[in-house]
Amino acid sequence: IHTSELSADAVSLGLFDHYMQKETFEQPEVVANTLEMVSGAQSISPQLFGASALELFPKITNILILACGTSYHAGMVARYWLEDVAGIPVNVEIASEYRYRKSVAQSNTLIITISQSGETADTIAALQHAKELHNGLSAVTLSICNAPESALTRQSQLKFLTRAGPEIGVASTKAFTTQLSSLFVLTLVLAKVNGHLSVAQEADYLKQLRHLPAAMQQVLLLEDQIKPWAKAFADKDHALFLGRGIHWPVAMEGALKLKEITYIHAESYAAGELKHGPLALVDEKMPVIAIAPNDGLIEKLKSNLQEVRARSGELYIFADRDTQIETGEGVHVINLPDHAGLLSPILHTLPLQLLSYHTALERGTDVDKPRNLAKSVTVE
Amino acid sequence: IHTSELSADAVSLGLFDHYMQKETFEQPEVVANTLEMVSGAQSISPQLFGASALELFPKITNILILACGTSYHAGMVARYWLEDVAGIPVNVEIASEYRYRKSVAQSNTLIITISQSGETADTIAALQHAKELHNGLSAVTLSICNAPESALTRQSQLKFLTRAGPEIGVASTKAFTTQLSSLFVLTLVLAKVNGHLSVAQEADYLKQLRHLPAAMQQVLLLEDQIKPWAKAFADKDHALFLGRGIHWPVAMEGALKLKEITYIHAESYAAGELKHGPLALVDEKMPVIAIAPNDGLIEKLKSNLQEVRARSGELYIFADRDTQIETGEGVHVINLPDHAGLLSPILHTLPLQLLSYHTALERGTDVDKPRNLAKSVTVE
Repeated sequence: IHTSELSADAVSLGLFDHYMQKETFEQPEVVANTLEMVSGAQSISPQLFGASALELFPKITNILILACGTSYHAGMVARYWLEDVAGIPVNVEIASEYRYRKSVAQSNTLIITISQSGETADTIAALQHAKELHNGLSAVTLSICNAPESALTRQSQLKFLTRAGPEIGVASTKAFTTQLSSLFVLTLVLAKVNGHLSVAQEADYLKQLRHLPAAMQQVLLLEDQIKPWAKAFADKDHALFLGRGIHWPVAMEGALKLKEITYIHAESYAAGELKHGPLALVDEKMPVIAIAPNDGLIEKLKSNLQEVRARSGELYIFADRDTQIETGEGVHVINLPDHAGLLSPILHTLPLQLLSYHTALERGTDVDKPRNLAKSVTVE
Repeated sequence: IHTSELSADAVSLGLFDHYMQKETFEQPEVVANTLEMVSGAQSISPQLFGASALELFPKITNILILACGTSYHAGMVARYWLEDVAGIPVNVEIASEYRYRKSVAQSNTLIITISQSGETADTIAALQHAKELHNGLSAVTLSICNAPESALTRQSQLKFLTRAGPEIGVASTKAFTTQLSSLFVLTLVLAKVNGHLSVAQEADYLKQLRHLPAAMQQVLLLEDQIKPWAKAFADKDHALFLGRGIHWPVAMEGALKLKEITYIHAESYAAGELKHGPLALVDEKMPVIAIAPNDGLIEKLKSNLQEVRARSGELYIFADRDTQIETGEGVHVINLPDHAGLLSPILHTLPLQLLSYHTALERGTDVDKPRNLAKSVTVE
């Protein structure tokens, strides 16, 4: 059944107060829609990215991801997945930087552009620049967009549509998580093409993807626990978001959300960099938000958080339940379900969106149309 | 003549009030020392990096730079140089991220570690990790350090010593600019090895390097113009540093300096990313510092700055004289000399160091020993 992505229903607010709120809570559904062709199948296929992907993907030896803003963060997460699972080296570049710098093209590059609208001016120009630079070098172009027809999809050989539906709120929510879902599917496809994915692993990842919308629903139930944190954040001027590994870009995205809609000066850091500068900022006025999945880095992260605590920084930790991080003096903890493995970045994004949303409500800012920002940056 | 790098003279304050001040003003001299073997010669040679470099450098096809903090920023600048001039693809990674993620090793990689002390724990561990990962893949290791004997230099095949002398101030100044100078020499050497450097270009770059200390001296004369800006910054809580291209990492370093010693929450952005989020932060309370060299991106940058001005952001612009950016309502300009081409990042770093130093004096913070930070991060 083909339903128009611009039906009236999709853009009415319904029972919600704001589009961002609606779009945050739609995420389990639109991620399910985006994954529909994948999770219904018993196996994954390159053709999900276009008929010619079957022929084009096997020759890929490296990947270049070009994007701006939130989409750049999605690319940063994907880098960890693609190198880890598919074994392909990845470069992720800010489109406005890549298009103007003299870089070195490699052969057999998969050039991926990511943009909700598919009309982001810098990303379009970066794609054109990349195509010229890789001319004759057997590059393949793929765009991941939310609009079925856009400049990026028209100019790419392959495409994957995030079926997020119209995103009205300027601060991206469901576009980001559907981009991540799409990039995870791409990771599995490329891993399979490269012989890095056993039949058992494929079946296991497909099972995880089928469970993903329900897992997201569980995390969204944390809203009531997040509201008191939003009250505490309402009168703050600063915030520091920390993550490590694949959750570092999640920290970036969390800081960007807070910045965009609350105008709190939120910054993110790879937690391992704390001692190289940002620790000087930490005092009782600088709340520190930590993304604490129960992955291989958790003990390192805990040690980073002790440093923060020793400098009187107040900690707000989103921790997987199995980390067993305890609430205490100056340490606030909200528990997510048990660690979700490679899909954890998608789940850990959700409470950060809710934190920004409720903090914006407390501060009385315009959630859906924050000052100075436009939904799609279609000029340079 | 061999003089000990730890002579009493080198660590006494002399006529200066703080080590950071002394070390800032020493930069023309220590950059000249670092470049001594280079600028005295009529041509450059791989052997500057070790006897075996002549044999090892020709096989390099890609570069991996591993570092933390300020040294990471030096690596980020070098990426632009190395790709542009030497035509070699470069990855720059935060050491604490690289050592723990599953990345893909390529063959014939030059693995460069950068660290003032050569004892940075994460960088040492990242080098060990990289060596294991590249085992059997014909990798070459090179460390750029300020200490003649260190864990990094002992564990690397090649080394280049920055002859900055002891750096006592926790916030790195002369270590950074001597690292940049060393990395520029490396760029020239690799460009020459790869046939990307004509005899005329080599002579021209050598001339520019010989002139560099004098050019730096000129820029340091701006101190008196910077002092009133420091007064204006003294009561600020925030600052946004903008740069594009090779001056984006210079903006990063400028923000880090301000953060480290004044505790002002300073953040940097690639100016092209402004509209994708940080512009929401800009109001009359958020001063915006721009690095404005007269390079190919200057018109793009001017357009970014107009966006800031339109949102009542107050601009503090370090502009090459030939950009002809004018002071005006809410627009403060300090002119550097005419554009210095590829060496511009080294010159544009200096006024940012002076701005941080004088702002710290105005705020009464401990310039040389900022709170929470150590000089060398020798534990994880």
